[in-house]
Amino acid sequence: MRRCLQLARKALGKTAPNPLVGCVITQGGKIVGQGFHPKAGEPHAEVFALRAAGEQARGATLYVNLEPCNHQGRTPPCTQAILQGGIRKVVVGMIDPDPRVSGTGVETLQQAGLEVVVGVEEAACRQLNEAFIHRVLYQRPLGILKYAMTLDGKIATTTGHSAWVTGEKARHLVHQQRAIADAVIVGGNTVRQDNPHLTSHGVSERNPLRVIVSPSFNLPPVAHLWDTEKAPTLIFTQEGSNLPLQAQLSQKGVEIEVFDQLTLEAVIESLYERGLSQIFWECGGVLAAQAIQAKAVQKVMAFIAPKIIGGSGAPSPVGDLGFTQMTEALPLKEVVITSLDGDLLVEGYLEG
Amino acid sequence: MRRCLQLARKALGKTAPNPLVGCVITQGGKIVGQGFHPKAGEPHAEVFALRAAGEQARGATLYVNLEPCNHQGRTPPCTQAILQGGIRKVVVGMIDPDPRVSGTGVETLQQAGLEVVVGVEEAACRQLNEAFIHRVLYQRPLGILKYAMTLDGKIATTTGHSAWVTGEKARHLVHQQRAIADAVIVGGNTVRQDNPHLTSHGVSERNPLRVIVSPSFNLPPVAHLWDTEKAPTLIFTQEGSNLPLQAQLSQKGVEIEVFDQLTLEAVIESLYERGLSQIFWECGGVLAAQAIQAKAVQKVMAFIAPKIIGGSGAPSPVGDLGFTQMTEALPLKEVVITSLDGDLLVEGYLEG
Repeated sequence: MRRCLQLARKALGKTAPNPLVGCVITQGGKIVGQGFHPKAGEPHAEVFALRAAGEQARGATLYVNLEPCNHQGRTPPCTQAILQGGIRKVVVGMIDPDPRVSGTGVETLQQAGLEVVVGVEEAACRQLNEAFIHRVLYQRPLGILKYAMTLDGKIATTTGHSAWVTGEKARHLVHQQRAIADAVIVGGNTVRQDNPHLTSHGVSERNPLRVIVSPSFNLPPVAHLWDTEKAPTLIFTQEGSNLPLQAQLSQKGVEIEVFDQLTLEAVIESLYERGLSQIFWECGGVLAAQAIQAKAVQKVMAFIAPKIIGGSGAPSPVGDLGFTQMTEALPLKEVVITSLDGDLLVEGYLEG
Repeated sequence: MRRCLQLARKALGKTAPNPLVGCVITQGGKIVGQGFHPKAGEPHAEVFALRAAGEQARGATLYVNLEPCNHQGRTPPCTQAILQGGIRKVVVGMIDPDPRVSGTGVETLQQAGLEVVVGVEEAACRQLNEAFIHRVLYQRPLGILKYAMTLDGKIATTTGHSAWVTGEKARHLVHQQRAIADAVIVGGNTVRQDNPHLTSHGVSERNPLRVIVSPSFNLPPVAHLWDTEKAPTLIFTQEGSNLPLQAQLSQKGVEIEVFDQLTLEAVIESLYERGLSQIFWECGGVLAAQAIQAKAVQKVMAFIAPKIIGGSGAPSPVGDLGFTQMTEALPLKEVVITSLDGDLLVEGYLEG
């Protein structure tokens, strides 16, 4: 199963709205076929593994981290391919999270007389596909709020200077995260203040969709984000805002989606409809607070650099949530701490 | 030597301006005497251990975490007591940090023909007496800035509510720290806002001197800190500020020291003259920034609770230091991370 997860990870960031799936077929303790799902529209992992195994699949055991599909989608059902391949035993990491089809793949295989084992390395399987699972269960992409702050809670100086809060290793990890995120979101203020690239900076050939939320379209005419050859850029804005600049950026290949009234609910809905599973919020405090209030954020990745910058007016990572009592604070659960060459990464999930 | 450190710790918080010292005497691999320095003015650890060993000290080995003193102070020199006791070998954790006497104790013993070993468990010995060492080397008490903040860098809500940021285990550790600190300092704002006790809350019978820095003496007439039966309270203020309240609090046993012009340099000087070695800064951001700028803080203890409170106007732990570039931030060194029932403690030292 661990090998399945390894294989599945080869397509990190490329499969949305589909899950990451790896598959291994063994015969007499030896691997005779393996594969992974490379991207939506291409065959599923099981199909690649069965092709590789060929005749050796007869009587073999198939391992897969997610329940094989049982319905005709863009590709035929994997359960049929497994039966046709002559597999005798199937080991499944986790059941399909979609309640409409959950368990039907396993049932089909069992009814056909195969031995099926379910729930092997289940926690790791869930972890790998947490964004996909969230998408399927809640019809929303998984939102991850990422920020980097000093040990005294500042994401920039009083003048807004923020290069850099954390060291190389932490920033490298952020670039890796961008390579596997479906989209990265910032607000207009971050574009004006930091002129970021929001790319994976070469750690991968893959870059996320770069999303800007700007009701006013008060954006600079020149910015790294308008270079859409590196990576696509999408701006959410509001009816009638700064039309000349809209035209100018459209010509550069920037996509612009205009709402009558721009809300984060509408943004999230649009990103879901576009098939995205994992959204990386790299915005400043104001948009971060709005995203938390709109329940667009489920997970927090807080990088903390062990240094003191000071500044009572220096920006901090989360703006107003309307709380007046410390007891109202939103607790994180399943907190994991990682040390990154001196910097700290605190990860956890918001409840509910 | 570890046993020496254990013994020395029995007097944690009680020995200033003296160091923490423990002593063990062994004869044929067996402990025949031990002792520690209980407080300034009382005998040194070596004397207690030699008394306990009596005749068994003849030909024995003496272990002590700090170089035995060689001068007549409030008590006779320990080197003489060691020689008179008939000790044959002395194992010293670390040399006396005071450059004026450093090494003379060891020399005296060596010249008398004893075998002397120096630098055993030296790092642990230095750690235990870091406040004493700082006091001796720089003629200033060691300042530790302590604060508790949420994962988004706030020490209170927008309305100033802060009970509680961290959980019980972290707060218990703060109470333990207060029991061994010589003084705890806050500003007038913390008194007005939080009405703190600043005691060890029963984890020890010992409480620190509670110090308030308030140039204006704009303090509430009723506050927990004015109850001086629990622990002493000292207010630093400026000439002519709120004399009626000064008189009222003096009557309650609060000590008041008045400066023409109140500066943190003057505060630190006064605390040094009072013989204090370790000062725990538990103040808000404004005073914390002033303390850092006055180089009154050498160490930071940042408690971080894994929760999000939000608030662009919510207070953060360190006020203005005058930095505009992130590269100016003060790095911490020798950073140690401790997990406390979900809360994090990040400790480190400011450079220079």
